Amino acid sequence: MTTRVTDLFNIQVPIIQAGMVWVSGWKLASAVSNAGGLGIVGAGSMKSELLLEHLQKTSSATSHPFGVNIPLLRGDIGDLINVIISQNVKIVFTSAGHPGRHIEKFKNAGCVVVHVVANVKQALKAQEVGCDAVAAEGFEAGGHNGLEEITTLSLIPQIVDAVKIPVIAAGGIADGRTMLAAFALGAEAVQVGTRFAATIESSAHEIYKQKIVDAKDGDTILTYRNILPVRALKNPFMEQVQKEETQKGMTRERMMELHAKGRERKGIFEGNWEEGEMEMGQSSGLVHDIISAADVVNRMMNEFESARKKLSTM
Amino acid sequence: MTTRVTDLFNIQVPIIQAGMVWVSGWKLASAVSNAGGLGIVGAGSMKSELLLEHLQKTSSATSHPFGVNIPLLRGDIGDLINVIISQNVKIVFTSAGHPGRHIEKFKNAGCVVVHVVANVKQALKAQEVGCDAVAAEGFEAGGHNGLEEITTLSLIPQIVDAVKIPVIAAGGIADGRTMLAAFALGAEAVQVGTRFAATIESSAHEIYKQKIVDAKDGDTILTYRNILPVRALKNPFMEQVQKEETQKGMTRERMMELHAKGRERKGIFEGNWEEGEMEMGQSSGLVHDIISAADVVNRMMNEFESARKKLSTM
Repeated sequence: MTTRVTDLFNIQVPIIQAGMVWVSGWKLASAVSNAGGLGIVGAGSMKSELLLEHLQKTSSATSHPFGVNIPLLRGDIGDLINVIISQNVKIVFTSAGHPGRHIEKFKNAGCVVVHVVANVKQALKAQEVGCDAVAAEGFEAGGHNGLEEITTLSLIPQIVDAVKIPVIAAGGIADGRTMLAAFALGAEAVQVGTRFAATIESSAHEIYKQKIVDAKDGDTILTYRNILPVRALKNPFMEQVQKEETQKGMTRERMMELHAKGRERKGIFEGNWEEGEMEMGQSSGLVHDIISAADVVNRMMNEFESARKKLSTM
Repeated sequence: MTTRVTDLFNIQVPIIQAGMVWVSGWKLASAVSNAGGLGIVGAGSMKSELLLEHLQKTSSATSHPFGVNIPLLRGDIGDLINVIISQNVKIVFTSAGHPGRHIEKFKNAGCVVVHVVANVKQALKAQEVGCDAVAAEGFEAGGHNGLEEITTLSLIPQIVDAVKIPVIAAGGIADGRTMLAAFALGAEAVQVGTRFAATIESSAHEIYKQKIVDAKDGDTILTYRNILPVRALKNPFMEQVQKEETQKGMTRERMMELHAKGRERKGIFEGNWEEGEMEMGQSSGLVHDIISAADVVNRMMNEFESARKKLSTM
């Protein structure tokens, strides 16, 4: 199955693994790329030395294309960029910042650049500055999230209508049916987070992986919603944040006090249910087992094909 | 095209027009039914005398099946039920309340009963008490909305997996692509609100209809979110509510003060942009014209078929 996105990355199947803090190191990224999808090393929780190590290990573990995701707002962004270019990584996903900010360096190094967006305006901006594609992420996605709360179902067709570059759908995609829905909307690939977070190769804590498996449809909540929204599992810490937010409101300063104290590490990497932020999307309700990344890719493609067949003969 | 839902209602196409306050009277409902879909008279903004008049007029204007939507929490629910049964209306959509509350009366009168749900638990409950189908409505929908904020993309497959009765997808569906996405997720019909609100037969004010046409992807907001969430166009009144809510929190009493003062009537029926609540979904960004209800049905089916064809040959 080929689309403009599989051509762009030179991959076999239009499934991209999302860069996720404390989850997507070299093990997960190389496993996804070896299975024919696009694996992505998530630099969000890595300093430049650690990123270097992960990129080198990914290179050794796969001969297939892989990428890296970097939040543009990072203070040490220059160091991260130097590592990426020095390691000859050719696929870069940028998020959390102006897409034009460092694009020239990447383009000069021959990289394909994809920006993560959450509304039409950001998608148009990404196209204007020369991005090769956009990853459009809906409200149901885990982790950091757009302020306007536009869902994947609403977001994808509106962005597809607005831009000429290919659109990768993100948020809520965890099986073949949700993948097929994204394609029905005009997406040319899907970016999958939560489903890959609960794989054998995910570097997250086993307790966190099991919490994804156990989560039901209404078990995630969005907090810090007017500042820098974060979707995570409803747990004692997140419920406390939500209570404070709805009763008293939330300021950026107070958010920094609450969120920035290693909460993601605590929840995802240390498996601390009470005090951490266990970021995951609403699609956690569709995840029922911890399997290998290759099994995720193969199962999604099989489900996609059978759902597509069913749809075409209705 | 037949599904369990088209069989259940004896309709030609699996498109159901949502019951909408100040929008879906006899004109819209009969136009949708005459076009082969299922028109629904929305009783939410009608007292029993007015409902009687609208049901009689719908009966005169179409020989096709049509339905009625009633909020179960209404104080005068007994009067509304008497009118519905006396008029021999055979399709009833219930919302905002326990689905078992009045189901026996409807079942004894030979009605098909569909309950509107926003999570898996509610869907299971509706099935248990004997509903014939559920309409599962996601976070992107206009008007009243579920507390858990589950999006259509996440909600539909999880409900399809949980229940045996057919699932009607609602929220975010305004064209053939979004309809196709709902079917990819396992829905057997779609319920469409905002797209039908901007039709010639909609009883809403012209200013409101034009505001739907003008709305872009991020132009709706959800307010009263921890009490009784409402999605509407961002306007001076809703922005004031949102500001108060995020800075000071919101109580049920304060919501009643703000919301209950005829705000929906003001926004939708009187076209008051400054002071009303102009309820609409995120799919307003996909609505670009005011056309007839029949044109909506025909266009959606044409788009659905061409999107399905494209998907099957990818």
